[in-house]
Amino acid sequence: MGSLGLTISALLCVVSVFCSNGVEGYIKYNTGSGIVDGKLNVHLVAHSHDDVGWLKTVDQYYVGSNNSIQGACVENVLDSVVMSLRRDPNRKFIFAEMAFFNRWWNEQSVEIQDEVRKLVDAGQLEFVNGGWCMHDEATTHYIDMIDQTTFGHQLLKSQFNKTPRAGWQIDPFGHSAVQAYLLGVEVGFDSLHFARIDYQDRAKRKGDKSLEVIWQGSRTFGPSSRIFTNAFPVHYSPPNGFHFEVKDENFEPVQDNPLLFDYNVEKRVNDFIAAAMVQANVTKGNHIMWTMGEDFQYQYAESWFKQMDKLIHYVNKDGRVNALYSTPSIYTDAKLASNESWPLKVDDYFPYADGPNAYWTGFFTSRPAFKRYIRFLSGYYLAARQLEFLAGRRSTSANTDGLGDALGIAQHHDAITGTAKQHTTNDYMKRLAIGASKAEAVVDSALSCLVGSKLNGKCAASTVTFSQCQLLNISFCPSTEQDIPQGKSLVVVAYNPLGWNRTDIIRIPVNYHNLVVKDSMGKIIESQYVEVDNVTSKLRKFYVEAYLGTSDKYAAKYWLVFPASVPPLGWNTYFISETSQKGNRARGFVSTMDLKKETIKVGPGNLKLSFSSSSGQLKRMFNSKTGIDLPVQQSYLWYGSSEGDTDPQKSGAYIFRPNGSPASVVSRSVPLKIIRGPLVDEVHQQFSSWISQVIRVYKDKDHAEFEFTVGPIPVDDSIGKEVITRLTANMVTDKVFYTDSNARDFLKRVRDYRADWPLKVTQPVAGNYYPINLGIFVEDKKSEFSVLVDRAIGGASINDGEIELMLHRRTIYDDSRGVDEPLDESVCVKNTCEGLTVRGNYYISADKLGSGARWRRTTSQEIYSPLLLAFSHEDSEKWKSSYLTKATTMESNYSLPNNVALITLQELVDGSVLVRLAHLYEAGEDPDYSKIAKVELKKIFAGKTIKTFKETSLSANQDKSEIKQTTWKVKGETQNEAAPIRGGPVDAASLIVELGPMEIRTFVLRF
Amino acid sequence: MGSLGLTISALLCVVSVFCSNGVEGYIKYNTGSGIVDGKLNVHLVAHSHDDVGWLKTVDQYYVGSNNSIQGACVENVLDSVVMSLRRDPNRKFIFAEMAFFNRWWNEQSVEIQDEVRKLVDAGQLEFVNGGWCMHDEATTHYIDMIDQTTFGHQLLKSQFNKTPRAGWQIDPFGHSAVQAYLLGVEVGFDSLHFARIDYQDRAKRKGDKSLEVIWQGSRTFGPSSRIFTNAFPVHYSPPNGFHFEVKDENFEPVQDNPLLFDYNVEKRVNDFIAAAMVQANVTKGNHIMWTMGEDFQYQYAESWFKQMDKLIHYVNKDGRVNALYSTPSIYTDAKLASNESWPLKVDDYFPYADGPNAYWTGFFTSRPAFKRYIRFLSGYYLAARQLEFLAGRRSTSANTDGLGDALGIAQHHDAITGTAKQHTTNDYMKRLAIGASKAEAVVDSALSCLVGSKLNGKCAASTVTFSQCQLLNISFCPSTEQDIPQGKSLVVVAYNPLGWNRTDIIRIPVNYHNLVVKDSMGKIIESQYVEVDNVTSKLRKFYVEAYLGTSDKYAAKYWLVFPASVPPLGWNTYFISETSQKGNRARGFVSTMDLKKETIKVGPGNLKLSFSSSSGQLKRMFNSKTGIDLPVQQSYLWYGSSEGDTDPQKSGAYIFRPNGSPASVVSRSVPLKIIRGPLVDEVHQQFSSWISQVIRVYKDKDHAEFEFTVGPIPVDDSIGKEVITRLTANMVTDKVFYTDSNARDFLKRVRDYRADWPLKVTQPVAGNYYPINLGIFVEDKKSEFSVLVDRAIGGASINDGEIELMLHRRTIYDDSRGVDEPLDESVCVKNTCEGLTVRGNYYISADKLGSGARWRRTTSQEIYSPLLLAFSHEDSEKWKSSYLTKATTMESNYSLPNNVALITLQELVDGSVLVRLAHLYEAGEDPDYSKIAKVELKKIFAGKTIKTFKETSLSANQDKSEIKQTTWKVKGETQNEAAPIRGGPVDAASLIVELGPMEIRTFVLRF
Repeated sequence: MGSLGLTISALLCVVSVFCSNGVEGYIKYNTGSGIVDGKLNVHLVAHSHDDVGWLKTVDQYYVGSNNSIQGACVENVLDSVVMSLRRDPNRKFIFAEMAFFNRWWNEQSVEIQDEVRKLVDAGQLEFVNGGWCMHDEATTHYIDMIDQTTFGHQLLKSQFNKTPRAGWQIDPFGHSAVQAYLLGVEVGFDSLHFARIDYQDRAKRKGDKSLEVIWQGSRTFGPSSRIFTNAFPVHYSPPNGFHFEVKDENFEPVQDNPLLFDYNVEKRVNDFIAAAMVQANVTKGNHIMWTMGEDFQYQYAESWFKQMDKLIHYVNKDGRVNALYSTPSIYTDAKLASNESWPLKVDDYFPYADGPNAYWTGFFTSRPAFKRYIRFLSGYYLAARQLEFLAGRRSTSANTDGLGDALGIAQHHDAITGTAKQHTTNDYMKRLAIGASKAEAVVDSALSCLVGSKLNGKCAASTVTFSQCQLLNISFCPSTEQDIPQGKSLVVVAYNPLGWNRTDIIRIPVNYHNLVVKDSMGKIIESQYVEVDNVTSKLRKFYVEAYLGTSDKYAAKYWLVFPASVPPLGWNTYFISETSQKGNRARGFVSTMDLKKETIKVGPGNLKLSFSSSSGQLKRMFNSKTGIDLPVQQSYLWYGSSEGDTDPQKSGAYIFRPNGSPASVVSRSVPLKIIRGPLVDEVHQQFSSWISQVIRVYKDKDHAEFEFTVGPIPVDDSIGKEVITRLTANMVTDKVFYTDSNARDFLKRVRDYRADWPLKVTQPVAGNYYPINLGIFVEDKKSEFSVLVDRAIGGASINDGEIELMLHRRTIYDDSRGVDEPLDESVCVKNTCEGLTVRGNYYISADKLGSGARWRRTTSQEIYSPLLLAFSHEDSEKWKSSYLTKATTMESNYSLPNNVALITLQELVDGSVLVRLAHLYEAGEDPDYSKIAKVELKKIFAGKTIKTFKETSLSANQDKSEIKQTTWKVKGETQNEAAPIRGGPVDAASLIVELGPMEIRTFVLRF
Repeated sequence: MGSLGLTISALLCVVSVFCSNGVEGYIKYNTGSGIVDGKLNVHLVAHSHDDVGWLKTVDQYYVGSNNSIQGACVENVLDSVVMSLRRDPNRKFIFAEMAFFNRWWNEQSVEIQDEVRKLVDAGQLEFVNGGWCMHDEATTHYIDMIDQTTFGHQLLKSQFNKTPRAGWQIDPFGHSAVQAYLLGVEVGFDSLHFARIDYQDRAKRKGDKSLEVIWQGSRTFGPSSRIFTNAFPVHYSPPNGFHFEVKDENFEPVQDNPLLFDYNVEKRVNDFIAAAMVQANVTKGNHIMWTMGEDFQYQYAESWFKQMDKLIHYVNKDGRVNALYSTPSIYTDAKLASNESWPLKVDDYFPYADGPNAYWTGFFTSRPAFKRYIRFLSGYYLAARQLEFLAGRRSTSANTDGLGDALGIAQHHDAITGTAKQHTTNDYMKRLAIGASKAEAVVDSALSCLVGSKLNGKCAASTVTFSQCQLLNISFCPSTEQDIPQGKSLVVVAYNPLGWNRTDIIRIPVNYHNLVVKDSMGKIIESQYVEVDNVTSKLRKFYVEAYLGTSDKYAAKYWLVFPASVPPLGWNTYFISETSQKGNRARGFVSTMDLKKETIKVGPGNLKLSFSSSSGQLKRMFNSKTGIDLPVQQSYLWYGSSEGDTDPQKSGAYIFRPNGSPASVVSRSVPLKIIRGPLVDEVHQQFSSWISQVIRVYKDKDHAEFEFTVGPIPVDDSIGKEVITRLTANMVTDKVFYTDSNARDFLKRVRDYRADWPLKVTQPVAGNYYPINLGIFVEDKKSEFSVLVDRAIGGASINDGEIELMLHRRTIYDDSRGVDEPLDESVCVKNTCEGLTVRGNYYISADKLGSGARWRRTTSQEIYSPLLLAFSHEDSEKWKSSYLTKATTMESNYSLPNNVALITLQELVDGSVLVRLAHLYEAGEDPDYSKIAKVELKKIFAGKTIKTFKETSLSANQDKSEIKQTTWKVKGETQNEAAPIRGGPVDAASLIVELGPMEIRTFVLRF
């Protein structure tokens, strides 16, 4: 008969079909206690962490397809959360990712939308972050962070009249100073919450209850940039045993029906209190937060809420602690009300490590081509929105919103980071490409309209058809390569998105060297031909077919190089035509030098670079104008990726873990090819079959441009490789170097050191890497040596005087952080696949100590916002008579001050115009420029009248004056430092905007 | 830069935060088409198949604990289905298992209960089956089937005033005739739906569109027992690609938002139509049913309904077929309205095979001890309810509902079948034991009250304390074993639950052989002692400790055997006391015979069994009264369980697959021990160390009783074993044998043959096994040879004249049907575990052709409802003066006719009384008894007056007269056969109930 466990329990009522109205049965759970003073309050914050793409694409996550990879469906989350919130007015939920919410919102009936508005108004549904995604903080540009946040905040403002209060960056892999002050305080947040900080840091902070701090993210703004910051003690999931996702393997329900077996109310209450005490022991004060959620959970929200209802009910009945439904805002208010003093935290939380050999510094570089594409489109989006505004936004034709959406999604902390699966990354790129093609149409059409404004100064529809070339970096541009029809010229319109006059070098591929370049006045201007090198031709052939799907029949023979001068927010036109003589009239077409001399000097202008003719390596740079003279070496090396050892941790998409061997030098002796000309000298170096480089020294520039081409990284030796370039200047830098925070502030870095805890150095290379978005520099007592980059990248100074940048990575193992793929990018043409080749630029400058900032700030703007080129073919005289060839859209002769950039100019759907002005210098960064700057708004908008004018928060979702200021007590601080320099209120009549150092001011205008 | 798939699609609106009120967005799906004539109608029947225990226990399934075994939570199903049904009045859902629904219902608020009532009234939530569980059909007793169905139907009637219309037996492993007519037609169902039929049968039926039939389950009732029966073409899940469970790996959503990637409406519509056409091609008419669900699915119902909404909307928009939300009732109505003619099906759907080597005939025997425990408690429950009624149900004290609930759950098709995991089986047994202990309390208290009714004839509280012994089969009964106190007697009260006078043998363990047994008149009656054998003593020692947790200090020395005579629905009292002489006054204590004669004859009465003294085997049985004389051999054998071969199918809990070797004979020569006495002769045979047997031949019985003790089955040779007993009679049976259907009708079986299709014989043994619940018999031109069993068991007649019964099974592999455990039962005491030993009885009789039924029908009632014994100690004279020692609760001298049984007598909570009377014979089964029988209701209830009287459907949920009769057209049939003999309406004055053969009539009375 088998074994009978004879535990008798009351079964009577449940088994009688007649007792359904008996005493056992429905229990109304009391979930409405709220905060109770004098008790430990456990704030249950219900959330679902919904990555805007990762293992699946954003659409797959939304609709719940491709579930064999991950059972995740955001539509379920939102549907079911709304149903559950409606069941009990005490229940609360927070949601962060507007890219998902927007999809869902648009599909709802008016009835559901009304219900949701009620839930939002009642505080049951609270939006946190409220950006389009939960952006990464290491590899993102501050302009992109602002844009994507604004995108989401506008949705919330327009649909709910709500402004989020909490920064909810729970998953990004380390946290930036710019996030704290700019995307925190300046967007009106009063708190910031996240899970990932260095494991050593966390251990120390748990010990001294300093997980929660007041973070002062800006040196320039000081105390006015403070935000309450809550780093979680473990992760963003609930304590063990309190996961209640539907079908969860570890689902341990509260069983309060004594008629069923396994009644466990007391046990679960004790479990709850035990877990609460663990957290209370590392948390200051009487409030702790439990993050009740996980990745893509709440697919059936009731599964969570039912258990939380019971826990709140029984825990509060028990009375030892108090449990409540809460949100980050309620939690923050409680913390503020507690009147505690908090430790102060400055700088940032980089790099992030979750173990001694697990520094998340690989993702600073992972997928460098994707990172470049995003950065390129970020600048393009800025320019396109300017043109969209200048020509007038037309709701019926293409607009730039698609690109904004795609870029917003791309800032996600698994997108731009390079930590999504390949198919998801492909999806991001597809979205970007679609958005870019729309934006390209906007640009074509806007330029056409603007050049057609000759007659009355108004933008007019014109017959010009423009084309653009997005693959110029591999010399592919059908518009410039094709034969110029008889009697016509190749018309090049260069648009300058900067607020300054600008002279730059244009490089376009052509097939002949009998071309004449004339400016808009008909004057022939100096030009130079450079033969297209083999590396580029090869790259072009393969990648054009890979991208366009058809083989490329042509190959451009030459680069035509000429200088262009373009007014601020304006354009200039150049006409290129064939000379009658087919003979060799080319200039700057210079053959390889003989290499007899020991040292070769390169550079047509003030800046000279000298190379060793024996090793082919850079030796020195000097500038006759500034007098700087600095020995500099430059080389390529690679770290072998760790395959794990006693610690199985591998190097991968997230984590950079070199295998312990010193970095291998790719080549100690490099053949040189030097091309000289009146505008630019080029040094071509082939370091190996898969690394080559062109250094360009321009006549009129004080920096050298390095164009690297790296890949396919060979892995046939079964060793993953992480390729760096290393620049070694002869400088005593005392372990110190500087890297930017999201391309905005520069932070001081000290090798093998953390200000917040005594660092145990376990990874002497990977642990010293920092994210670079704008640049990195070192200084000694005389000089600064700076490098600017064209995309997010990892960088370090491993030895004094050294700067290294990780340019490309290819690993053959996954690093066990979820993506479950090695970082092994390849590109295929038909059935031929090869490792991805990456091409890009970095820029180096040596400056006198104290004058580097000026180069860095100005040049970085030029890198971010290159001249936008549009091409057409037309008779030059006809063009000149019909179209405006050169113009600024600002008042003539007006330009922005050198320390101010126009970082947003965008017409919104309702016709209002969003304008952001950014001071480019930090306090004390430059003797002249780190001062109040003034911008005359009226002069920016020539021919337009500003009718209304409103200054807003950074994300434009509330009036500047409405932003609540919260003051937190800081431990050991008796009084605040002096207030920072900020611009004063804008006079409504003069509309002159003052900007203090690092200040960004946001305006909504109507014309 | 990676690869860019440049598929451009309209992204505009979704990316603009301002267009949420635009044209794209909310879609109201049209789900209300209903049936459309002239089109193929696809009936989407949303269901969740919720096993009442299987891999997890019933409570674990309900609350969603133990999810590491299976992510399943029925509470989620019901919660979320209700939420989803409320969202669209066209949505429908069916639910079957009331054991779950009752738990859920009791926990709901009044508001939710009201909403659910509305959904039920509107037809959105339809109950199917409506029993406590979806009972098995092979191993269940018809009384248990009726009881568990009634349990659920009463809930539905009382809470919703609803009577289910559809039999929804989608998962049981084959289907019984009794299910079709008794638990189908007789409970008011007009359709029956299931998935599992033999794979060869299915193939044929798909070919000739005969999956849907009119099933006439009763030979006796003929056309009046017909029901529309729908066997699914594949299984009870949706067509591939149409599973929409939350997190389902293969979730393929309908993507109708053109702004998201992967829009697939046309594809999904085409998929739908293609799948519909596949089914339409094997289905008669214009209606097909899609079973939209699976095991424990709809945990988040919206995940299904959202997709079904879209499918219905877009498929109907397409217009090629018509899709609708439906239920089995709507489907059945549509089939009826189509006015088609359907094939007729008789008999049953056993055995079930889902592959050539996958006959599901193992579960007929799997877990034989558990099966016996259920059968034992089934009879006990019947008796306990009688006593509960007779003494008056008291709502405040113990009642029998707990046992009813536990038995209801135990009928589930993974419970009694033996196909649940071991821990789940333990849970079932625990529930049964708890229920039994409550019922025991009811019995004790009722008997105490009844015997105390001496003074006024009314049941009265008395001071008698009774105890009972549930482990008598292993000789454990403290009440009878303990010393009888000086001056007192051991008082044995025997209650007879049958409606007839009855004489039976009582066997109780005692420690002395100087006892005197007196009847209620004080007359000494004949008794006999039999020494308790070693096998039993060993079994007792181990199992008492295993069951009770404490070691058993005693061991009974003797069985005291004496005859008892008890009136119908009444009791008699026996007094056992010690004689003054401690000397050997024992009778029937006979030592082993010498074995000199070649043949040994055994049996104190008319029936004699003869044994070979050399082989120790049974040779012949003959009866001097009936003149029958039949050579019979009996032996034990085992089949080796298949471990798989070219077909990996193993033998396991579900499937019986012998390994191909002939069955091994356990022993060809068996030592005999023969014990003789005035009441019974016993033959003790030890076949091996693990198989022994006692054959008992009673003085006054015409059958022999075999008590087998099998186990622990040795598997140290790594061969699973399936142990049979084989009885070989010298008869020419021409492949034919008869087995019962759920212990009710007997069906004719023909070896290696199926009436419905030309059988391809792949498993000559396993494929000829049938479920036995009551018995099995063979016949030739002269005799019938019958075996009756005490539990569900598998049986067959593999050769003419042979009957074999599978008594026990132990396998070392799982058979890959989900349970994922080998069928390897063990019992542990402390750290010592051994394979389960099974003890039980079967009964054999040889009768003249035509008179076997009488023995089978009467004896099976006695086996099912043994005398219920209660013990006390008291001075016999005092007892006789205070208490009623012998009584019937019926009118004195009244008893039921020999062909009628009282199968239910139960007082309901509301005071009404449920009575079921069953005619025990089929039409033509017996010349005398297969006739109308008459029962005088008034005489059953002596001393009570029947105030109201109502005849109802079998499950008592509707008046008999309200049952809708549905007439289906049968292919090739022009007119119905003659109506069966049934009892006429009951005259309200006389209250005489007529019953035709096999008729069961159900009444609700009030006194």
